[in-house]
Amino acid sequence: MRDTLIRLANTIAQRADAAPDSSYVASLFAKGRGKIAQKVGEEATETIIAALSGNAQEVTAEAADLIFHLMILLRDAGVTMDDVLAELDRREGVSGLVEKAART
Amino acid sequence: MRDTLIRLANTIAQRADAAPDSSYVASLFAKGRGKIAQKVGEEATETIIAALSGNAQEVTAEAADLIFHLMILLRDAGVTMDDVLAELDRREGVSGLVEKAART
Amino acid sequence: MRDTLIRLANTIAQRADAAPDSSYVASLFAKGRGKIAQKVGEEATETIIAALSGNAQEVTAEAADLIFHLMILLRDAGVTMDDVLAELDRREGVSGLVEKAART
Amino acid sequence: MRDTLIRLANTIAQRADAAPDSSYVASLFAKGRGKIAQKVGEEATETIIAALSGNAQEVTAEAADLIFHLMILLRDAGVTMDDVLAELDRREGVSGLVEKAART
Repeated sequence: MRDTLIRLANTIAQRADAAPDSSYVASLFAKGRGKIAQKVGEEATETIIAALSGNAQEVTAEAADLIFHLMILLRDAGVTMDDVLAELDRREGVSGLVEKAART
Repeated sequence: MRDTLIRLANTIAQRADAAPDSSYVASLFAKGRGKIAQKVGEEATETIIAALSGNAQEVTAEAADLIFHLMILLRDAGVTMDDVLAELDRREGVSGLVEKAART
Repeated sequence: MRDTLIRLANTIAQRADAAPDSSYVASLFAKGRGKIAQKVGEEATETIIAALSGNAQEVTAEAADLIFHLMILLRDAGVTMDDVLAELDRREGVSGLVEKAART
Repeated sequence: MRDTLIRLANTIAQRADAAPDSSYVASLFAKGRGKIAQKVGEEATETIIAALSGNAQEVTAEAADLIFHLMILLRDAGVTMDDVLAELDRREGVSGLVEKAART
C-alpha cells in the first residue's frame, strides 16, 4: 500500500516538469491548477455515481482515478500525500464527532 | 503512510456496525450511502476551493477530509483501499495518455 | 427570460426522443441518467472554478452550461423547470434561515 | 416563470448588503465567495444524488436549492441570470454537437 502511493507520487513528480505532450500528467500540469481541480471534481462526481448505481469494480476504478488526480492537485499546490496522511494521523484518537465539531 | 491507511480502515470498520450515536462515522453509516456520497462531494468541492484560493494547510486539511470520507464510501460499497491501490498499481507502466485513451 | 427557458425546454424535449447521433442532447439522453448527472457535476465544478479564478464572461458561460445540463437531467427525471420555479415560489416569504432550518 | 427568477434576484440583491445575521442569504454573502461556491457544489451533488436515487419531489427540491445558490454566486461574481439566459439564447440555433465542439 505504502509502495503504491510512493511510486505514484514519484511518477507524478517526474512528469510535473516534463514536456506537456510527453504524458497525460505533464499535459495536465501544463494546463494549470484550474484544469487539474476540474478533473478532481469530475472524478469525485464519477465516484459518487458509481457508488450509487455501479458495481464494486466501477467504484474501484473511479476511486483510483480520484486519488490519482487528487495527488496531481496536491503536487501542484505544494502538498504531499505524506502531509495529508500525517494530518489523518494527527486526528486519530480524537472522536470523529468531537473533531468535526471542533472544525466547524 | 501504510500504517495510517490501515489504522484508518480499521477504525472505520469498527464504527460501521456501532450504534449511530456512538461516533460521527457510525452516524454517517446509519444515514446511508446517499448521505455518505454527499459528504464525498462536499469534501471534494472544499478541496478544489482550498487549492484555488487557500493555503497549503487548508489544502492538506480538506484533502484529509476527502480521503477520510472516500474510505467510508468505499467501505459502504464493499471496496477496500487495498483494491483501489491495487488498481493504481495495475495501471502503472501504462502511459497516462494511453491508459486514459483506453478508458474513454 | 421566460421565453429562453421555455424554448430551451422545448428543444430538449424534441431531442429527448431523437436518434442518439442526431444531436449532443440526444446522445446524452441515450447514454442514460448516470452520464447526464456526471455532466451536471462537471459543469457545477467548472462554474465554481470560474467564480473563484475566472472573469464574468467565463462565469456566464459555465453557468449557462450548468443550467442547460440541469434541464436535461430534470427532463430525464420527469421534472420540469416550472416545477422547480414553483418550488422556489412556494418558499418565498419564508425567511431563508427558517426555511433552511426546516429542511435540515 | 419569469416573475419567479426576477423576484428571486431582487430578494438576493436586497439581502446582499444587509447585516450578516439578518438572513441566510446575507450570512452567505458575509462569508465570502469560497463559502458560496461551496454551497453550489453541495447542492449540485445533492441534485445528482436525488436524480439517481430519489423521487421527483426530491429532485425538484434539490434543483431549486441549486438554482437559488447559483443565483447567489452569480450575484457575488457580478453576473445576472439575464446574462446567463442571454448566453443560452445566443447559442440557440447552433446544433448542440457543433456548439460543444466549438467550445472544446
